[in-house]
Amino acid sequence: MSAKAQTGNFLEDFRIGQTIVHATPRTLSVGDAALYTALYGSRFAVQSADGFARALGLPQSPLDDLLVFHTVFGKSVPDISLNAVANLGYAEGRFLKPVYPGTTLSAQSEIVGLKENSNKQTGVVYVRTTGMDETGDTVLSYVRWAMVKKRQAESVIAGQHVPKLAEFVPAAELRAPRCDLAGFDTALSGSPQFWDDYAAGEKIDHADGMTVEEAEHMMATRLYQNTARVHFNQFAQAADRFGKRLIYGGHVISVARALSFNGLANAVFILAVNGGRHVNPFFAGDTLFAWSQVLDKAELRGRKDCGALRLRLIAAKNRPCTDFPEGDAGGKYPDCVVLDFDYWALMPRRA
Amino acid sequence: MSAKAQTGNFLEDFRIGQTIVHATPRTLSVGDAALYTALYGSRFAVQSADGFARALGLPQSPLDDLLVFHTVFGKSVPDISLNAVANLGYAEGRFLKPVYPGTTLSAQSEIVGLKENSNKQTGVVYVRTTGMDETGDTVLSYVRWAMVKKRQAESVIAGQHVPKLAEFVPAAELRAPRCDLAGFDTALSGSPQFWDDYAAGEKIDHADGMTVEEAEHMMATRLYQNTARVHFNQFAQAADRFGKRLIYGGHVISVARALSFNGLANAVFILAVNGGRHVNPFFAGDTLFAWSQVLDKAELRGRKDCGALRLRLIAAKNRPCTDFPEGDAGGKYPDCVVLDFDYWALMPRRA
Amino acid sequence: MSAKAQTGNFLEDFRIGQTIVHATPRTLSVGDAALYTALYGSRFAVQSADGFARALGLPQSPLDDLLVFHTVFGKSVPDISLNAVANLGYAEGRFLKPVYPGTTLSAQSEIVGLKENSNKQTGVVYVRTTGMDETGDTVLSYVRWAMVKKRQAESVIAGQHVPKLAEFVPAAELRAPRCDLAGFDTALSGSPQFWDDYAAGEKIDHADGMTVEEAEHMMATRLYQNTARVHFNQFAQAADRFGKRLIYGGHVISVARALSFNGLANAVFILAVNGGRHVNPFFAGDTLFAWSQVLDKAELRGRKDCGALRLRLIAAKNRPCTDFPEGDAGGKYPDCVVLDFDYWALMPRRA
Repeated sequence: MSAKAQTGNFLEDFRIGQTIVHATPRTLSVGDAALYTALYGSRFAVQSADGFARALGLPQSPLDDLLVFHTVFGKSVPDISLNAVANLGYAEGRFLKPVYPGTTLSAQSEIVGLKENSNKQTGVVYVRTTGMDETGDTVLSYVRWAMVKKRQAESVIAGQHVPKLAEFVPAAELRAPRCDLAGFDTALSGSPQFWDDYAAGEKIDHADGMTVEEAEHMMATRLYQNTARVHFNQFAQAADRFGKRLIYGGHVISVARALSFNGLANAVFILAVNGGRHVNPFFAGDTLFAWSQVLDKAELRGRKDCGALRLRLIAAKNRPCTDFPEGDAGGKYPDCVVLDFDYWALMPRRA
Repeated sequence: MSAKAQTGNFLEDFRIGQTIVHATPRTLSVGDAALYTALYGSRFAVQSADGFARALGLPQSPLDDLLVFHTVFGKSVPDISLNAVANLGYAEGRFLKPVYPGTTLSAQSEIVGLKENSNKQTGVVYVRTTGMDETGDTVLSYVRWAMVKKRQAESVIAGQHVPKLAEFVPAAELRAPRCDLAGFDTALSGSPQFWDDYAAGEKIDHADGMTVEEAEHMMATRLYQNTARVHFNQFAQAADRFGKRLIYGGHVISVARALSFNGLANAVFILAVNGGRHVNPFFAGDTLFAWSQVLDKAELRGRKDCGALRLRLIAAKNRPCTDFPEGDAGGKYPDCVVLDFDYWALMPRRA
Repeated sequence: MSAKAQTGNFLEDFRIGQTIVHATPRTLSVGDAALYTALYGSRFAVQSADGFARALGLPQSPLDDLLVFHTVFGKSVPDISLNAVANLGYAEGRFLKPVYPGTTLSAQSEIVGLKENSNKQTGVVYVRTTGMDETGDTVLSYVRWAMVKKRQAESVIAGQHVPKLAEFVPAAELRAPRCDLAGFDTALSGSPQFWDDYAAGEKIDHADGMTVEEAEHMMATRLYQNTARVHFNQFAQAADRFGKRLIYGGHVISVARALSFNGLANAVFILAVNGGRHVNPFFAGDTLFAWSQVLDKAELRGRKDCGALRLRLIAAKNRPCTDFPEGDAGGKYPDCVVLDFDYWALMPRRA
């Protein structure tokens, strides 16, 4: 292979404290918003209708928070996880500013942790990735960690360190978009339920199922300019242990989030990602179901119009979630569960 | 299932005269227009090129009439037909105002008829659905009826009534967009044929065939935020009598309409939907063919630049339409016919 | 079939010197740009981020050159190649003006050559197709030739002529977009390599592979309003020698071009198409790989900020290109090679 084609970084290429500016800034448009709707069928009213957003004091419909997340994530792939065996987790994700069509997103990552595995073949890299708009404002920041191959087993990994990551983003640190949800129209939003109507511990089966096709997850993942090879190259994947293309974990999150509309229609913004694990692979032809549990509720400083719900979103494949499948006490999940995602959402409060 | 996830209305939940405001208004954009082109390959010049539209006195290319129809229809599904067994028909559909990118559509439905079936398990609900833009103007209005399940066989359905529906929209009630087609450029539009060149009774085989994939019809139907479960959930559909996802009937209409360009290239606006029946199911992998018959011709009040054609658009699967397959005198259709759609289109007249 | 449905031109319908105005001008938008990204995962920075384009003195991100090419090509299909057996080649392609969202493209073709085949059943038509924007400026011009059926074997083809076509577009005739690449940011563009770093003869394996699905190539080809039947109609194709839908050759070019980012990330504009041949068919389910060879380098008149690379882009199916598969001296290609494409690209020079 020519030296001009990039082969990505291996574990020994990273140094703690190193900052990597990721390539290919991307201007998101109403075209991306339309594709996001076509791919997931998302119906959250703030993102669906300009007029609904304006009635809350926003200039227009912002782009879906997860479209922003996937775009920023995609930028980091060529530098961070092209040689990843697995994307292991997320933490300390904060959405700091709504993103509107026309915004150009760029991204950079700081290496915040490195830990070689005992097999000397692989290790874990921890990065804090930041997404910025064209004014330089940070719109999103999160930590993720991935298991990455070493180039050579004999390489010594200097300065190993596993960062301490918050178990969840404290409610006091959540930043709600500047808007006023006091007049939130629940007839138009699709649900009469306010923040007030949810209780910690409550479980919600989102009922619907969505089958995913190869063309869909590949179009989505290319839209995010995510270049991870396992999603696209059936010739190579045929030799993999599953024999199939793997679906980008973020696609699963977005399908599950769209399904969660049925029960959480008024959870119109994602404020933070506390954690997330892709616990089993998801393939084309599989049907995704999802359920949510309310983990916590929090008031937002200075806001009487809205509050935050800490939600756990669990997605399962080829099986309805009427009985709320999840992991056991030891953290072991049944084969059907593919996602365990912990986030804070913003929801209007009853006047 | 939690009470927070919606299960839709059943027959006994409707009352004649009731008005339901549908959720999730939707701002349509050039992104939706691009997806519509990608999904159907539509080539009608007015909707394809801003300059062509402007030459007729329109401000820019309007969105395809059927994109508007599907969007409004989609809004009504969670309230009207989530528990539908079948969508039975359409009538009295009127397109009242062209819709441009940037328009926010919202929808509401009035219950205009209810009739229990003799099996007591199901019944038919008739609704008049109205689509409005953000100024409150009605852009589309139509009646549809669907067979809907009852929640309980023993429920009594009060106030049953089957509405009298017009067999077709009278030509005198058609509202043509404000524009001037006198200078309509037939070299750019793709056909030299004007309204003057069509005769009542004439049949046109549209010749081409289009195969539909699962990813395509699901992306389309999600774009319309249509949540009917039969289109998306292969896990559930595997237990259905066909064992497959059903393709949204509106997707079939749009494929057939795009095919009809070849023979009706200058039928640039849909003015009314007189009726429509999905007479057999259509599945991914099937190839759609279509033919049209001119049912009637009408002048439009005060317009010398254009006239209306009443067209019957019939679509068949896995079989060319060279011999114009259709239903028999008793209203029985061969298995190959999937759509019988009756509409008024606007076409320029020869100067 | 009704006389109203068009059956396309046959060899005997063309006359040398004849100009055909193609139907259906098309306004391209940010929606088309988003779809192009979703279909190919293209990451060239100039087309990806408005801010990146503006830093070079462009008003915003232009549309991908190949999106422009496919759109113009698509317009020509109903008139030129609806009855084509094969699209044989391209020459003398020049991109003359960047195209931005909002531009309306129209197209016309001049018949520049005709040659009947000895079997009398088919022949070759040569056309020079021109794409124009709404101001009348030519944005693209190229010659292509296709093998087209005759309507009747006994028809006499008058005035046969095979045009002399340039083997390649001379560097002196390349027209680079008006911009200044002196400050080209290689951290954001994804590669540190400038024009200066490439040498004639150099081969680059682009490493990655992309599997293509039916839904993807059909959505792409419909987006271009290309009506060639072989791409869409599985019912008819089942009787064809391959039994499958053929993927539009331009889709293969775009996939290969997107793959070539890995090694040619800074080749941000296509200036000319010197030639191109689709040497074997490509089908859904196949995985495309690609490699490039630098055929030549040229300075651009009056420009110190950028130079031109003449590149040969070869794509192969279901086989990595680590050993650079290509045709033999006699012009015979192995079955795996599907594309041999010769073009000039613009690349920034090191300051």
